[in-house]
Amino acid sequence: MNETIETMLAHRSIRAFKDTPLTEEQINILVKAAQSASTSSYIQAYSIIGVKDREKKKQLAELAGGQSYVEENGHFFVFCADFNRHHATAEMHGTDVTETVQSTEKFMVGLIDASLAAQNASVAAESMGLGICYIGGIRNDLEKVNDLLNLPQYVIPLFGLCVGYPNQEPDIKPRLPLENIYHVDEYEQNEKVFKDELTKYDEVISSYYTDRTAGQRTGGWTAMMAHKLTSPVRTYMKKFLEKKGFPLK
Amino acid sequence: MNETIETMLAHRSIRAFKDTPLTEEQINILVKAAQSASTSSYIQAYSIIGVKDREKKKQLAELAGGQSYVEENGHFFVFCADFNRHHATAEMHGTDVTETVQSTEKFMVGLIDASLAAQNASVAAESMGLGICYIGGIRNDLEKVNDLLNLPQYVIPLFGLCVGYPNQEPDIKPRLPLENIYHVDEYEQNEKVFKDELTKYDEVISSYYTDRTAGQRTGGWTAMMAHKLTSPVRTYMKKFLEKKGFPLK
Repeated sequence: MNETIETMLAHRSIRAFKDTPLTEEQINILVKAAQSASTSSYIQAYSIIGVKDREKKKQLAELAGGQSYVEENGHFFVFCADFNRHHATAEMHGTDVTETVQSTEKFMVGLIDASLAAQNASVAAESMGLGICYIGGIRNDLEKVNDLLNLPQYVIPLFGLCVGYPNQEPDIKPRLPLENIYHVDEYEQNEKVFKDELTKYDEVISSYYTDRTAGQRTGGWTAMMAHKLTSPVRTYMKKFLEKKGFPLK
Repeated sequence: MNETIETMLAHRSIRAFKDTPLTEEQINILVKAAQSASTSSYIQAYSIIGVKDREKKKQLAELAGGQSYVEENGHFFVFCADFNRHHATAEMHGTDVTETVQSTEKFMVGLIDASLAAQNASVAAESMGLGICYIGGIRNDLEKVNDLLNLPQYVIPLFGLCVGYPNQEPDIKPRLPLENIYHVDEYEQNEKVFKDELTKYDEVISSYYTDRTAGQRTGGWTAMMAHKLTSPVRTYMKKFLEKKGFPLK
Protein backbone atom coordinates (compact mmCIF):
# COMPACT_ATOMS: atom_id res chain seq x y z
CA MET A 1 0.00 0.00 0.00
CA ASN A 2 1.56 3.27 -1.09
CA GLU A 3 0.68 6.88 -0.23
CA THR A 4 -1.41 7.45 -3.36
CA ILE A 5 -3.64 4.47 -2.61
CA GLU A 6 -3.80 5.39 1.08
CA THR A 7 -5.01 8.86 0.04
CA MET A 8 -7.76 7.35 -2.11
CA LEU A 9 -8.93 4.88 0.52
CA ALA A 10 -9.12 7.72 3.07
CA HIS A 11 -11.48 9.76 0.84
CA ARG A 12 -14.56 11.34 2.37
CA SER A 13 -16.34 14.42 1.07
CA ILE A 14 -15.62 17.62 2.98
CA ARG A 15 -18.49 20.05 3.48
CA ALA A 16 -16.85 22.64 5.75
CA PHE A 17 -13.66 24.44 4.76
CA LYS A 18 -11.30 26.89 6.42
CA ASP A 19 -11.34 30.43 5.04
CA THR A 20 -8.03 29.98 3.19
CA PRO A 21 -8.06 30.47 -0.57
CA LEU A 22 -5.92 28.18 -2.71
CA THR A 23 -2.84 29.84 -4.19
CA GLU A 24 -2.53 30.27 -7.95
CA GLU A 25 0.23 27.66 -7.85
CA GLN A 26 -2.06 25.15 -6.13
CA ILE A 27 -4.82 25.81 -8.68
CA ASN A 28 -2.36 25.37 -11.55
CA ILE A 29 -1.17 22.04 -10.19
CA LEU A 30 -4.75 20.79 -9.86
CA VAL A 31 -5.60 21.81 -13.43
CA LYS A 32 -2.41 20.25 -14.78
CA ALA A 33 -3.17 17.05 -12.87
CA ALA A 34 -6.68 17.11 -14.38
CA GLN A 35 -5.25 17.56 -17.86
CA SER A 36 -2.91 14.59 -17.42
CA ALA A 37 -5.82 12.17 -17.23
CA SER A 38 -6.51 9.94 -20.21
CA THR A 39 -8.67 11.44 -22.96
CA SER A 40 -10.59 9.60 -25.68
CA SER A 41 -8.48 9.65 -28.88
CA TYR A 42 -6.77 12.85 -27.68
CA ILE A 43 -10.07 14.74 -27.99
CA GLN A 44 -9.76 16.65 -24.66
CA ALA A 45 -13.49 17.35 -24.70
CA TYR A 46 -13.86 19.34 -21.50
CA SER A 47 -13.21 22.70 -19.89
CA ILE A 48 -12.88 23.79 -16.30
CA ILE A 49 -14.20 27.08 -14.94
CA GLY A 50 -12.65 28.32 -11.70
CA VAL A 51 -15.15 30.53 -9.90
CA LYS A 52 -13.62 33.32 -7.81
CA ASP A 53 -16.34 35.97 -8.04
CA ARG A 54 -18.09 35.89 -4.67
CA GLU A 55 -21.49 36.85 -6.07
CA LYS A 56 -21.34 34.03 -8.63
CA LYS A 57 -20.32 31.55 -5.92
CA LYS A 58 -23.24 32.70 -3.78
CA GLN A 59 -25.68 32.20 -6.62
CA LEU A 60 -24.22 28.77 -7.38
CA ALA A 61 -24.55 27.81 -3.70
CA GLU A 62 -28.22 28.84 -3.75
CA LEU A 63 -29.16 27.05 -6.93
CA ALA A 64 -27.32 23.92 -5.73
CA GLY A 65 -29.89 23.74 -2.93
CA GLY A 66 -28.38 26.11 -0.38
CA GLN A 67 -25.07 24.29 0.08
CA SER A 68 -22.99 26.92 1.92
CA TYR A 69 -19.70 25.16 1.15
CA VAL A 70 -20.19 25.96 -2.55
CA GLU A 71 -19.65 29.57 -1.51
CA GLU A 72 -17.21 29.02 1.36
CA ASN A 73 -14.17 27.00 0.31
CA GLY A 74 -10.60 27.38 -0.91
CA HIS A 75 -11.63 27.26 -4.58
CA PHE A 76 -14.62 26.22 -6.64
CA PHE A 77 -14.34 24.52 -10.03
CA VAL A 78 -17.08 23.73 -12.53
CA PHE A 79 -16.26 20.85 -14.89
CA CYS A 80 -17.89 21.00 -18.33
CA ALA A 81 -18.14 18.70 -21.34
CA ASP A 82 -16.85 20.92 -24.17
CA PHE A 83 -17.17 20.57 -27.94
CA ASN A 84 -17.02 24.32 -28.62
CA ARG A 85 -13.28 23.82 -29.13
CA HIS A 86 -13.92 21.19 -31.79
CA HIS A 87 -16.34 23.44 -33.61
CA ALA A 88 -13.55 26.05 -33.59
CA THR A 89 -11.14 23.53 -35.16
CA ALA A 90 -13.72 22.90 -37.91
CA GLU A 91 -13.98 26.64 -38.61
CA MET A 92 -10.19 26.85 -38.76
CA HIS A 93 -9.96 24.03 -41.32
CA GLY A 94 -13.20 24.40 -43.28
CA THR A 95 -14.87 21.19 -42.11
CA ASP A 96 -18.15 20.49 -40.31
CA VAL A 97 -18.29 18.52 -37.07
CA THR A 98 -21.94 19.29 -36.19
CA GLU A 99 -23.34 15.84 -36.92
CA THR A 100 -20.62 14.10 -34.91
CA VAL A 101 -21.04 16.37 -31.89
CA GLN A 102 -24.81 15.74 -32.01
CA SER A 103 -24.31 12.01 -31.51
CA THR A 104 -25.03 10.24 -28.23
CA GLU A 105 -21.58 8.64 -28.55
CA LYS A 106 -19.75 11.98 -28.47
CA PHE A 107 -21.86 13.25 -25.58
CA MET A 108 -20.73 10.17 -23.65
CA VAL A 109 -17.11 10.93 -24.58
CA GLY A 110 -17.45 14.48 -23.22
CA LEU A 111 -18.88 13.23 -19.93
CA ILE A 112 -16.22 10.55 -19.52
CA ASP A 113 -13.34 12.90 -20.43
CA ALA A 114 -14.52 15.61 -18.00
CA SER A 115 -15.01 13.08 -15.21
CA LEU A 116 -11.57 11.48 -15.58
CA ALA A 117 -10.02 14.96 -15.43
CA ALA A 118 -12.06 15.91 -12.36
CA GLN A 119 -11.08 12.80 -10.48
CA ASN A 120 -7.41 13.50 -11.10
CA ALA A 121 -7.89 17.02 -9.71
CA SER A 122 -9.69 15.55 -6.69
CA VAL A 123 -7.04 12.98 -5.85
CA ALA A 124 -4.29 15.55 -6.45
CA ALA A 125 -6.03 17.92 -4.02
CA GLU A 126 -6.38 15.23 -1.38
CA SER A 127 -2.72 14.27 -1.81
CA MET A 128 -1.90 17.91 -0.91
CA GLY A 129 -3.89 17.69 2.33
CA LEU A 130 -6.90 19.46 0.87
CA GLY A 131 -10.49 18.20 1.03
CA ILE A 132 -12.98 18.02 -1.81
CA CYS A 133 -16.71 17.72 -2.45
CA TYR A 134 -18.38 17.15 -5.82
CA ILE A 135 -21.48 19.28 -6.36
CA GLY A 136 -24.01 17.53 -8.58
CA GLY A 137 -26.49 20.09 -7.22
CA ILE A 138 -25.48 22.59 -9.90
CA ARG A 139 -27.53 20.41 -12.26
CA ASN A 140 -30.64 21.71 -10.44
CA ASP A 141 -30.52 24.66 -12.83
CA LEU A 142 -27.99 24.37 -15.63
CA GLU A 143 -29.63 27.20 -17.55
CA LYS A 144 -28.62 29.57 -14.77
CA VAL A 145 -25.13 28.07 -14.39
CA ASN A 146 -24.73 28.42 -18.13
CA ASP A 147 -25.61 32.13 -17.99
CA LEU A 148 -23.52 32.84 -14.88
CA LEU A 149 -20.40 31.35 -16.48
CA ASN A 150 -21.12 32.68 -19.98
CA LEU A 151 -20.79 29.28 -21.57
CA PRO A 152 -20.88 29.12 -25.38
CA GLN A 153 -22.87 26.65 -27.44
CA TYR A 154 -21.63 23.02 -27.16
CA VAL A 155 -20.42 23.46 -23.56
CA ILE A 156 -22.38 21.68 -20.80
CA PRO A 157 -21.63 22.21 -17.10
CA LEU A 158 -21.69 18.79 -15.41
CA PHE A 159 -20.77 19.22 -11.74
CA GLY A 160 -18.93 21.50 -9.37
CA LEU A 161 -15.94 20.64 -7.22
CA CYS A 162 -15.25 22.39 -3.90
CA VAL A 163 -11.62 22.27 -2.80
CA GLY A 164 -10.08 23.66 0.37
CA TYR A 165 -8.55 23.03 3.77
CA PRO A 166 -10.93 20.79 5.73
CA ASN A 167 -12.65 22.25 8.77
CA GLN A 168 -14.28 18.97 9.79
CA GLU A 169 -13.30 15.32 10.16
CA PRO A 170 -16.13 13.22 8.74
CA ASP A 171 -15.93 9.43 8.73
CA ILE A 172 -15.37 7.37 5.60
CA LYS A 173 -18.70 6.07 4.26
CA PRO A 174 -18.66 2.31 3.64
CA ARG A 175 -18.99 1.26 0.00
CA LEU A 176 -20.94 -1.64 -1.49
CA PRO A 177 -19.39 -5.10 -0.91
CA LEU A 178 -16.60 -5.56 -3.44
CA GLU A 179 -18.26 -8.70 -4.84
CA ASN A 180 -21.41 -6.72 -5.67
CA ILE A 181 -19.47 -4.14 -7.71
CA TYR A 182 -16.84 -6.43 -9.20
CA HIS A 183 -17.65 -9.49 -11.31
CA VAL A 184 -15.31 -11.91 -13.09
CA ASP A 185 -15.97 -12.73 -16.78
CA GLU A 186 -19.69 -12.12 -16.50
CA TYR A 187 -22.15 -10.18 -14.37
CA GLU A 188 -23.46 -12.09 -11.31
CA GLN A 189 -26.27 -14.23 -12.67
CA ASN A 190 -27.69 -15.50 -9.38
CA GLU A 191 -30.29 -12.99 -8.22
CA LYS A 192 -30.40 -14.45 -4.71
CA VAL A 193 -26.63 -14.07 -4.28
CA PHE A 194 -26.83 -10.51 -5.64
CA LYS A 195 -29.65 -9.48 -3.28
CA ASP A 196 -28.05 -11.25 -0.29
CA GLU A 197 -24.96 -9.09 -0.81
CA LEU A 198 -27.15 -5.98 -0.75
CA THR A 199 -28.88 -7.16 2.43
CA LYS A 200 -25.51 -7.73 4.07
CA TYR A 201 -24.53 -4.19 3.03
CA ASP A 202 -27.77 -2.84 4.52
CA GLU A 203 -26.66 -4.10 7.92
CA VAL A 204 -23.32 -2.27 7.58
CA ILE A 205 -25.01 0.99 6.56
CA SER A 206 -27.76 0.74 9.15
CA SER A 207 -25.16 0.31 11.88
CA TYR A 208 -23.09 3.20 10.39
CA TYR A 209 -26.04 5.61 10.55
CA THR A 210 -27.29 4.34 13.93
CA ASP A 211 -23.88 5.01 15.51
CA ARG A 212 -23.55 8.49 13.98
CA THR A 213 -27.07 9.75 14.68
CA ALA A 214 -27.58 8.25 18.15
CA GLY A 215 -30.27 6.02 16.66
CA GLN A 216 -32.17 8.86 14.90
CA ARG A 217 -31.45 7.29 11.53
CA THR A 218 -31.25 3.52 11.13
CA GLY A 219 -32.16 2.64 7.53
CA GLY A 220 -30.00 0.71 5.11
CA TRP A 221 -28.79 1.52 1.61
CA THR A 222 -31.38 -0.42 -0.41
CA ALA A 223 -34.34 1.32 1.27
CA MET A 224 -32.65 4.72 0.77
CA MET A 225 -32.23 4.07 -2.97
CA ALA A 226 -35.62 2.36 -3.45
CA HIS A 227 -37.40 5.43 -2.05
CA LYS A 228 -35.13 8.19 -3.29
CA LEU A 229 -35.38 7.09 -6.91
CA THR A 230 -39.18 6.85 -7.11
CA SER A 231 -39.51 10.34 -8.64
CA PRO A 232 -37.30 11.61 -11.45
CA VAL A 233 -35.46 14.89 -10.87
CA ARG A 234 -33.97 17.46 -13.26
CA THR A 235 -36.39 16.39 -15.98
CA TYR A 236 -35.52 19.53 -18.01
CA MET A 237 -32.14 17.98 -18.86
CA LYS A 238 -32.98 16.59 -22.29
CA LYS A 239 -34.35 19.96 -23.45
CA PHE A 240 -31.38 21.86 -22.06
CA LEU A 241 -28.96 19.55 -23.87
CA GLU A 242 -30.87 19.97 -27.14
CA LYS A 243 -30.73 23.72 -26.78
CA LYS A 244 -26.97 23.62 -26.20
CA GLY A 245 -26.36 21.61 -29.36
CA PHE A 246 -26.58 18.06 -28.00
CA PRO A 247 -29.76 16.43 -29.33
CA LEU A 248 -28.22 13.02 -28.47
CA LYS A 249 -28.91 11.49 -31.88
CA MET B 1 5.05 18.30 -5.82
CA ASN B 2 4.33 14.97 -4.13
CA GLU B 3 4.50 11.40 -5.46
CA THR B 4 0.80 11.18 -6.27
CA ILE B 5 0.92 14.27 -8.45
CA GLU B 6 4.19 13.18 -10.04
CA THR B 7 2.51 9.88 -10.94
CA MET B 8 -0.37 11.73 -12.61
CA LEU B 9 1.84 14.13 -14.55
CA ALA B 10 3.90 11.17 -15.82
CA HIS B 11 0.83 9.47 -17.30
CA ARG B 12 0.97 8.06 -20.81
CA SER B 13 -1.12 5.22 -22.15
CA ILE B 14 0.63 1.87 -22.37
CA ARG B 15 -0.16 -0.35 -25.35
CA ALA B 16 2.37 -3.18 -24.81
CA PHE B 17 2.45 -5.18 -21.59
CA LYS B 18 4.65 -7.90 -20.14
CA ASP B 19 3.07 -11.32 -19.86
CA THR B 20 2.62 -11.07 -16.09
CA PRO B 21 -0.92 -11.34 -14.75
CA LEU B 22 -1.94 -9.12 -11.85
CA THR B 23 -2.32 -10.95 -8.55
CA GLU B 24 -5.73 -11.21 -6.87
CA GLU B 25 -4.41 -8.83 -4.21
CA GLN B 26 -3.48 -6.23 -6.82
CA ILE B 27 -6.89 -6.53 -8.48
CA ASN B 28 -8.62 -6.14 -5.11
CA ILE B 29 -6.63 -3.00 -4.33
CA LEU B 30 -7.54 -1.48 -7.70
CA VAL B 31 -11.24 -2.22 -7.22
CA LYS B 32 -11.20 -0.85 -3.67
CA ALA B 33 -9.46 2.30 -4.90
CA ALA B 34 -12.14 2.61 -7.61
CA GLN B 35 -14.89 2.23 -5.01
CA SER B 36 -13.37 4.98 -2.85
CA ALA B 37 -14.06 7.62 -5.48
CA SER B 38 -16.91 10.06 -4.90
CA THR B 39 -20.36 8.89 -5.96
CA SER B 40 -23.43 11.03 -6.64
CA SER B 41 -25.65 10.97 -3.50
CA TYR B 42 -24.19 7.56 -2.53
CA ILE B 43 -25.82 5.98 -5.58
CA GLN B 44 -22.78 3.87 -6.64
CA ALA B 45 -24.22 3.49 -10.12
CA TYR B 46 -21.55 1.35 -11.75
CA SER B 47 -20.10 -2.14 -11.93
CA ILE B 48 -16.74 -3.43 -13.02
CA ILE B 49 -16.22 -6.67 -14.93
CA GLY B 50 -12.76 -8.20 -14.75
CA VAL B 51 -12.18 -10.31 -17.86
CA LYS B 52 -9.92 -13.34 -17.37
CA ASP B 53 -11.33 -15.71 -19.96
CA ARG B 54 -8.84 -15.70 -22.82
CA GLU B 55 -11.47 -16.30 -25.53
CA LYS B 56 -13.54 -13.35 -24.28
CA LYS B 57 -10.46 -11.12 -24.20
CA LYS B 58 -9.65 -12.14 -27.74
CA GLN B 59 -13.13 -11.28 -28.93
CA LEU B 60 -13.02 -7.95 -27.11
CA ALA B 61 -9.66 -7.17 -28.74
CA GLU B 62 -11.12 -7.90 -32.17
CA LEU B 63 -14.26 -5.85 -31.77
CA ALA B 64 -12.22 -2.96 -30.32
CA GLY B 65 -10.56 -2.74 -33.73
CA GLY B 66 -7.82 -5.35 -33.43
CA GLN B 67 -6.06 -3.84 -30.42
CA SER B 68 -3.78 -6.72 -29.32
CA TYR B 69 -3.17 -5.19 -25.88
CA VAL B 70 -6.84 -5.75 -25.01
CA GLU B 71 -5.97 -9.46 -25.10
CA GLU B 72 -2.39 -9.25 -23.88
CA ASN B 73 -2.07 -7.44 -20.55
CA GLY B 74 -1.94 -8.02 -16.80
CA HIS B 75 -5.68 -7.62 -16.40
CA PHE B 76 -8.62 -6.23 -18.36
CA PHE B 77 -11.51 -4.38 -16.74
CA VAL B 78 -14.76 -3.23 -18.30
CA PHE B 79 -16.43 -0.32 -16.52
CA CYS B 80 -20.22 -0.12 -16.77
CA ALA B 81 -22.91 2.33 -15.74
CA ASP B 82 -25.24 0.19 -13.62
CA PHE B 83 -28.83 0.77 -12.49
CA ASN B 84 -29.72 -2.94 -12.31
CA ARG B 85 -28.79 -2.74 -8.64
CA HIS B 86 -31.27 0.10 -8.09
CA HIS B 87 -34.04 -1.85 -9.80
CA ALA B 88 -33.20 -4.67 -7.37
CA THR B 89 -33.60 -2.29 -4.39
CA ALA B 90 -37.01 -1.28 -5.75
CA GLU B 91 -38.08 -4.95 -5.94
CA MET B 92 -36.83 -5.46 -2.38
CA HIS B 93 -38.90 -2.54 -1.05
CA GLY B 94 -41.94 -2.54 -3.35
CA THR B 95 -41.21 0.74 -5.15
CA ASP B 96 -40.68 1.60 -8.83
CA VAL B 97 -37.55 3.40 -10.02
CA THR B 98 -38.13 2.88 -13.78
CA GLU B 99 -39.04 6.47 -14.62
CA THR B 100 -36.03 7.88 -12.76
CA VAL B 101 -33.58 5.48 -14.39
CA GLN B 102 -35.02 6.42 -17.80
CA SER B 103 -34.06 10.08 -17.32
CA THR B 104 -31.13 11.71 -19.11
CA GLU B 105 -30.02 13.03 -15.71
CA LYS B 106 -29.57 9.56 -14.23
CA PHE B 107 -27.76 8.30 -17.32
CA MET B 108 -25.31 11.17 -16.81
CA VAL B 109 -24.91 10.17 -13.15
CA GLY B 110 -24.06 6.60 -14.17
CA LEU B 111 -21.43 7.78 -16.65
CA ILE B 112 -19.86 10.19 -14.19
CA ASP B 113 -19.86 7.67 -11.31
CA ALA B 114 -18.25 4.95 -13.45
CA SER B 115 -15.62 7.35 -14.80
CA LEU B 116 -14.58 8.67 -11.39
CA ALA B 117 -14.17 5.08 -10.20
CA ALA B 118 -12.15 4.13 -13.28
CA GLN B 119 -9.78 7.04 -12.90
CA ASN B 120 -9.08 6.07 -9.30
CA ALA B 121 -8.24 2.55 -10.46
CA SER B 122 -5.98 3.99 -13.17
CA VAL B 123 -4.02 6.28 -10.87
CA ALA B 124 -3.79 3.53 -8.25
CA ALA B 125 -2.37 1.18 -10.90
CA GLU B 126 0.18 3.74 -12.05
CA SER B 127 1.19 4.41 -8.44
CA MET B 128 2.04 0.69 -8.21
CA GLY B 129 4.32 0.90 -11.25
CA LEU B 130 1.73 -0.56 -13.61
CA GLY B 131 0.66 0.99 -16.90
CA ILE B 132 -2.89 1.52 -18.16
CA CYS B 133 -4.81 2.17 -21.35
CA TYR B 134 -8.50 3.05 -21.62
CA ILE B 135 -10.31 1.22 -24.42
CA GLY B 136 -13.16 3.29 -25.85
CA GLY B 137 -13.00 0.87 -28.79
CA ILE B 138 -15.31 -1.56 -27.00
CA ARG B 139 -18.08 0.90 -27.90
CA ASN B 140 -17.62 -0.22 -31.53
CA ASP B 141 -20.03 -3.04 -30.71
CA LEU B 142 -21.68 -2.82 -27.31
CA GLU B 143 -24.29 -5.39 -28.28
CA LYS B 144 -21.54 -7.99 -28.50
CA VAL B 145 -19.78 -6.78 -25.32
CA ASN B 146 -23.14 -6.97 -23.59
CA ASP B 147 -23.64 -10.58 -24.66
CA LEU B 148 -20.05 -11.64 -23.91
CA LEU B 149 -20.27 -10.33 -20.34
CA ASN B 150 -23.87 -11.42 -19.80
CA LEU B 151 -24.96 -7.96 -18.69
CA PRO B 152 -28.51 -7.60 -17.37
CA GLN B 153 -30.95 -4.86 -18.31
CA TYR B 154 -29.94 -1.37 -17.06
CA VAL B 155 -26.20 -2.09 -17.31
CA ILE B 156 -24.20 -0.30 -20.05
CA PRO B 157 -20.54 -1.11 -20.75
CA LEU B 158 -18.72 2.22 -21.23
CA PHE B 159 -15.03 1.50 -21.77
CA GLY B 160 -12.34 -1.04 -21.07
CA LEU B 161 -9.17 -0.55 -19.04
CA CYS B 162 -6.00 -2.53 -19.74
CA VAL B 163 -3.63 -2.78 -16.78
CA GLY B 164 -0.24 -4.43 -16.59
CA TYR B 165 3.51 -4.15 -16.40
CA PRO B 166 4.65 -1.83 -19.23
CA ASN B 167 6.72 -3.31 -22.02
CA GLN B 168 7.33 0.03 -23.72
CA GLU B 169 8.34 3.56 -22.74
CA PRO B 170 6.17 5.97 -24.73
CA ASP B 171 6.54 9.73 -24.31
CA ILE B 172 4.03 11.91 -22.53
CA LYS B 173 1.65 13.55 -25.04
CA PRO B 174 1.39 17.32 -24.56
CA ARG B 175 -2.02 18.58 -23.47
CA LEU B 176 -3.87 21.73 -24.56
CA PRO B 177 -2.49 24.99 -23.15
CA LEU B 178 -3.78 25.37 -19.60
CA GLU B 179 -5.43 28.70 -20.45
CA ASN B 180 -7.51 27.03 -23.17
CA ILE B 181 -8.89 24.42 -20.77
CA TYR B 182 -9.13 26.57 -17.64
CA HIS B 183 -11.13 29.79 -17.44
CA VAL B 184 -11.74 32.12 -14.49
CA ASP B 185 -15.32 33.18 -13.69
CA GLU B 186 -16.48 32.89 -17.27
CA TYR B 187 -15.55 31.03 -20.46
CA GLU B 188 -13.04 32.84 -22.68
CA GLN B 189 -15.15 35.30 -24.68
CA ASN B 190 -12.51 36.48 -27.14
CA GLU B 191 -12.59 34.14 -30.12
CA LYS B 192 -9.25 35.38 -31.43
CA VAL B 193 -7.50 34.68 -28.13
CA PHE B 194 -9.15 31.24 -28.01
CA LYS B 195 -8.08 30.31 -31.54
CA ASP B 196 -4.58 31.76 -31.08
CA GLU B 197 -4.11 29.41 -28.13
CA LEU B 198 -5.10 26.51 -30.36
CA THR B 199 -2.70 27.63 -33.08
CA LYS B 200 0.12 27.82 -30.54
CA TYR B 201 -0.79 24.30 -29.44
CA ASP B 202 -0.70 23.12 -33.06
CA GLU B 203 2.97 24.08 -33.22
CA VAL B 204 3.72 22.02 -30.10
CA ILE B 205 1.89 18.98 -31.47
CA SER B 206 3.31 19.31 -34.96
CA SER B 207 6.82 19.36 -33.53
CA TYR B 208 5.98 16.42 -31.24
CA TYR B 209 4.84 14.24 -34.16
CA THR B 210 7.62 15.43 -36.51
CA ASP B 211 10.27 14.39 -33.96
CA ARG B 212 8.70 11.01 -33.28
CA THR B 213 7.94 9.97 -36.87
CA ALA B 214 11.10 11.33 -38.53
CA GLY B 215 8.90 13.83 -40.37
CA GLN B 216 6.34 11.24 -41.62
CA ARG B 217 3.62 12.92 -39.61
CA THR B 218 3.63 16.68 -39.09
CA GLY B 219 0.03 17.84 -38.53
CA GLY B 220 -1.26 19.73 -35.52
CA TRP B 221 -4.13 19.03 -33.16
CA THR B 222 -6.78 21.27 -34.71
CA ALA B 223 -6.45 19.68 -38.17
CA MET B 224 -6.58 16.21 -36.61
CA MET B 225 -9.84 17.04 -34.79
CA ALA B 226 -11.38 19.02 -37.66
CA HIS B 227 -10.98 16.03 -40.00
CA LYS B 228 -11.53 13.17 -37.58
CA LEU B 229 -14.89 14.50 -36.42
CA THR B 230 -16.45 15.07 -39.83
CA SER B 231 -18.27 11.71 -39.80
CA PRO B 232 -20.16 10.43 -36.77
CA VAL B 233 -19.24 6.97 -35.48
CA ARG B 234 -21.11 4.42 -33.36
CA THR B 235 -24.43 5.83 -34.52
CA TYR B 236 -26.25 2.76 -33.14
CA MET B 237 -25.67 4.08 -29.59
CA LYS B 238 -29.05 5.71 -29.02
CA LYS B 239 -30.92 2.53 -30.07
CA PHE B 240 -28.69 0.32 -27.94
CA LEU B 241 -29.29 2.52 -24.89
CA GLU B 242 -33.06 2.44 -25.46
CA LYS B 243 -33.00 -1.34 -25.70
CA LYS B 244 -31.08 -1.57 -22.41
CA GLY B 245 -33.63 0.57 -20.57
CA PHE B 246 -32.13 4.03 -21.06
CA PRO B 247 -34.38 6.00 -23.42
CA LEU B 248 -32.75 9.23 -22.13
CA LYS B 249 -36.04 10.99 -21.40
